[in-house]
Amino acid sequence: MKASSFLKTVLYVAVLYAATSHAAGPLTAAEPAAATQQIIPAGSQPSITAPAEHFTGHVRIDPVWPANADINASGGLVTFEPGARSDWHLHPKGQYFVVVSGVGLTQEWGKPVREIHPGDVVWCPPGVKHWHGAAPHTAMTHLAVTGTVDGKNVEWMEKVTDEQYNAR
Amino acid sequence: MKASSFLKTVLYVAVLYAATSHAAGPLTAAEPAAATQQIIPAGSQPSITAPAEHFTGHVRIDPVWPANADINASGGLVTFEPGARSDWHLHPKGQYFVVVSGVGLTQEWGKPVREIHPGDVVWCPPGVKHWHGAAPHTAMTHLAVTGTVDGKNVEWMEKVTDEQYNAR
Repeated sequence: MKASSFLKTVLYVAVLYAATSHAAGPLTAAEPAAATQQIIPAGSQPSITAPAEHFTGHVRIDPVWPANADINASGGLVTFEPGARSDWHLHPKGQYFVVVSGVGLTQEWGKPVREIHPGDVVWCPPGVKHWHGAAPHTAMTHLAVTGTVDGKNVEWMEKVTDEQYNAR
Repeated sequence: MKASSFLKTVLYVAVLYAATSHAAGPLTAAEPAAATQQIIPAGSQPSITAPAEHFTGHVRIDPVWPANADINASGGLVTFEPGARSDWHLHPKGQYFVVVSGVGLTQEWGKPVREIHPGDVVWCPPGVKHWHGAAPHTAMTHLAVTGTVDGKNVEWMEKVTDEQYNAR
């Protein structure tokens, strides 16, 4: 598969990290941070609109922490407006997502749609095809903790149809 | 160093995961999860009181996700009552912590105490000696994302004295 827009977004975020001067130098995934404690201040990581190519409806990503040479998963808050959802996809190193607010939906390929609520933690193992998003009339924010291997963290597939989304 | 109480706590949490029946089977760090999406429901992970041996004041740990065969860092919410803090320690694979609420303090050995606020993300590289906790009169909750290597994620050292804590 060709490099996805989402991957480009992740790379863009990595560039943002590289471009932002923190207290003790830049913090990038490619280049290990200096061996000193560093603070990424609130407000220093711009919100990103998730690409329409891989999502339905309005979805915002707020980066929290990047994967680095030591920790192999990034963290980001993802906010889905009512009815919004990702396309079908898989994660080569798996993904946890933790519902922070609202009401969400998620589905593994071939299984029923599940409703998820604040405090629920979902583990999607590597290679499992799934989608996640908001409920039809309620927004949802989750923290996505996504494993990264060789710079890749997602493989995109087809869109979630309205029929699939509403099959409950 | 001998196995710490905190490590015992982490092992206890792993045992809790093993003992808790989830929708699609147990989820443990040692045994990779089945290749199917799993939900850890809100309310299924008991709160833990952090051991007095390694903390000053009252500190509560709410486990969020365990490290596993794919993602090498666990996540937990840690709530420090006013004045409470960890002992000095280091993390063999580093740690991110994300302030969720309140006002916190953190210090790297030999550097000034820093005040941290909601939305601030701190990266502590492997081997860097530090402590973190609440401000003197304000509680603080952070999400700790702690790298794990060979089942170890922390090495405990001496207590943070009142003189060190108040040196601002």
